[in-house]
Amino acid sequence: MRGLLLQDTIVAPATPSGMGAIGVIRVSGSRALQITDTLFTRSKGKKTLQETPSHRVVLGHLHAGGEWIDEVLVTVFKNPHSYTGEDTAEISCHGSPYIQERILHALLEAGCRKANPGEFTLRAFLHGKMDLSQAEAVAELIAAESKAHHDLALQQLKGSVSKGLRNMRDEMIKYASLLELELDFSEEDVEFADRTQFLELMERICISLQELLDSFTGGNAIKNGIPVAIAGAPNTGKSTLLNALLGEEKALVSPIAGTTRDVIEDVTYLKGVAFRFIDTAGIRETGDVVEQMGIARAFDRVEEASLVFLMLSATEWDEEGIREMLRDTRISNKRLLVLINKCDLISEAQQNSLQQTVAMLTTAPVFFISALTQQGLAEVKSWLEHLVESEYLNTRETVVISARHRDALRRALDACGSARQRMEDGLSGELVAQEVREALYYLGLITGEVSTDDLLDSIFTNFCIGK
Amino acid sequence: MRGLLLQDTIVAPATPSGMGAIGVIRVSGSRALQITDTLFTRSKGKKTLQETPSHRVVLGHLHAGGEWIDEVLVTVFKNPHSYTGEDTAEISCHGSPYIQERILHALLEAGCRKANPGEFTLRAFLHGKMDLSQAEAVAELIAAESKAHHDLALQQLKGSVSKGLRNMRDEMIKYASLLELELDFSEEDVEFADRTQFLELMERICISLQELLDSFTGGNAIKNGIPVAIAGAPNTGKSTLLNALLGEEKALVSPIAGTTRDVIEDVTYLKGVAFRFIDTAGIRETGDVVEQMGIARAFDRVEEASLVFLMLSATEWDEEGIREMLRDTRISNKRLLVLINKCDLISEAQQNSLQQTVAMLTTAPVFFISALTQQGLAEVKSWLEHLVESEYLNTRETVVISARHRDALRRALDACGSARQRMEDGLSGELVAQEVREALYYLGLITGEVSTDDLLDSIFTNFCIGK
Repeated sequence: MRGLLLQDTIVAPATPSGMGAIGVIRVSGSRALQITDTLFTRSKGKKTLQETPSHRVVLGHLHAGGEWIDEVLVTVFKNPHSYTGEDTAEISCHGSPYIQERILHALLEAGCRKANPGEFTLRAFLHGKMDLSQAEAVAELIAAESKAHHDLALQQLKGSVSKGLRNMRDEMIKYASLLELELDFSEEDVEFADRTQFLELMERICISLQELLDSFTGGNAIKNGIPVAIAGAPNTGKSTLLNALLGEEKALVSPIAGTTRDVIEDVTYLKGVAFRFIDTAGIRETGDVVEQMGIARAFDRVEEASLVFLMLSATEWDEEGIREMLRDTRISNKRLLVLINKCDLISEAQQNSLQQTVAMLTTAPVFFISALTQQGLAEVKSWLEHLVESEYLNTRETVVISARHRDALRRALDACGSARQRMEDGLSGELVAQEVREALYYLGLITGEVSTDDLLDSIFTNFCIGK
Repeated sequence: MRGLLLQDTIVAPATPSGMGAIGVIRVSGSRALQITDTLFTRSKGKKTLQETPSHRVVLGHLHAGGEWIDEVLVTVFKNPHSYTGEDTAEISCHGSPYIQERILHALLEAGCRKANPGEFTLRAFLHGKMDLSQAEAVAELIAAESKAHHDLALQQLKGSVSKGLRNMRDEMIKYASLLELELDFSEEDVEFADRTQFLELMERICISLQELLDSFTGGNAIKNGIPVAIAGAPNTGKSTLLNALLGEEKALVSPIAGTTRDVIEDVTYLKGVAFRFIDTAGIRETGDVVEQMGIARAFDRVEEASLVFLMLSATEWDEEGIREMLRDTRISNKRLLVLINKCDLISEAQQNSLQQTVAMLTTAPVFFISALTQQGLAEVKSWLEHLVESEYLNTRETVVISARHRDALRRALDACGSARQRMEDGLSGELVAQEVREALYYLGLITGEVSTDDLLDSIFTNFCIGK
């Protein structure tokens, strides 16, 4: 089926919809240049697009049904030196939705098929321009909103995930084929595969796979942002704190006006990592109220958090309330940061006394801040930055950010573990080989050495059209 | 000041903001390639972008501060063979807002300046790549939402407005210089400029200018849509009619899902011309209510209309109400179309009788329709299409769609008229030359042979950034 699909020449807008200076429409497939030629007249010279060398830009106009549609630039990419690996025409037209529609319509009439989401990248994969994890990295890269996520996606695009896995796979395949070979000579009871070396290999692989799996927690936090729950009574200054944390970073994230995405109020970036702040206002209202639906939901959200900011007000000190919150395992089991706000309104002596009180209640780090005057905020930030650096960014080169990869890695690890166990238990080569094949299958799923239509569909439907 | 501005190398995103397959960032100016070179490493080969021939596309990656930003394609355009007439680099990156921000930021750091709205096109104008009316046509083209508006914008881009005006200007300049020459010899009382030929010329020019001016009404209607007021009592079926008219055409306008702009409910396209339907529900409530604000406003909107649909219900026939509406000059002075709806619910005999009744009241064309069953709608459409073809599309080649052009044409026409008059009145060559100079000035404003910073500012600030 995929083979048949590849026969088509596909078309889609490659730039976001809306008005802009230019819009780009991409045509890819064996007839891409031929079809575009039927609509295109170049301004100077007589060469058709098919006769134009790769990576050249040609000025001309597009017409359909005897009418000019637009003056355009067409960039010619020749198979295999294009994104998809196929002949490709990129049409750069005036950025009017109307014009883009006309051009798309004309190309469809001329024999193109509308591309499915991700179909250009799917073709790049099917033509061996990138493996599956790199193809997925393209979507990650486009969706990345933070520096750290962008950097991980870029690493994956460059093949960091694939490279390690391919080495493992190659070594395993070598052993697996020796094991398979033994099966052919099973009556002669020979051992082509060195058992000790095999065990060493599997141990090394298990460690590597476990490391990759471990990287997912950090990778996922980087991808989706680190969820931070802010707990505390109303009026302890949560919003002021958020604004103070957001204010500076927003400017860093978007230096160019007019190009920024919609501002999401409760995300801030530190060291390029997104922190998603979850407001849990109200959970302090102790005892009998806890049953209420709203409060329960607040706690559900605290559950997701990697970190809890416990906001206390230095001027409205409710020791019993604080004690109660800290007793609650849903809070105390999390990594906790105690922020005592409004400390600009109390004396140093009061501050010392509060410090001692809190030290009796929790071992969590305590910061005296004033969200209003920004006092102490630099310290909170640098604590967070230190956390990011030590736990999220200092990690190994390869970080897994895809849940699909994690699932496949888990299954591969299980199979490798079983292979080791069976080998150690002295089970037959056949039974060991079975588990190795299983591990190879799951590793192959990540890079796409093994793939099914269903898998490809589920991956590429999440892409945007035109990519 | 403009001269100084041209020294800068400018940068801006050229594609609409948001997530997409690709984003394009445009860098233009004498240092465009040099600056981009500092951030760019090509994948194959050693040539810098500066050493790359024009109209070539180069694969590589952008980096800043030692970090990869993205894998990109850079298209090189060399002065003067670019849109702006300057060296230009078009960077095609992954379509993530984050990446585009990073790249823009890096280019700004490396010495570019953020482009003002329309600055690329302004530079194209200042470098003589297009005249002012063509530059304005770029903005028209991008904003055009209907085929007819698009076609007019494209004609203007191709220079249809400019060409005619330039010919007039050239002829006038020839005569003007002869008149000026006479002034140098004023004591000798010679006539270098043939008065008869001059009068003929001015007459011809006045006719052409008047024709251009006349074209504005149609051009403006095409640009902004033809306003149609729908008058009639509630429940006469106005919405059903609108939906019936909209339904079909919407599909024609946007054959590709996902690329359409937001649907504007009350616009439909016939022969590629937009009809803006204005709902004036309620104005039928006669006599004493007419004073009410709402009704007054409805009438204001009818004022704007080029066409009024008078919707009547065949089943709730209120002859006195109809008579009253038709007596109202605000309706009867407009071009009127009487639509008698719900005719599927009456007999042919009743229809004939209503026909006769209406014929006594008005000479406007009457259509019996059923908005519900679509009966008679084809006839209404073809009447509208005929109107469009005979009054808006059959026009001369050159149509003025810019209010700025119309104003300048009016003043030029006035000056030409005065020049003729002064010549006929036997006034001195000096006084005639004064008017000719005035006319030349205003014609020059349209194409930009005459321009001021203020004029350029007011034109180009309406552009989008990146164009």
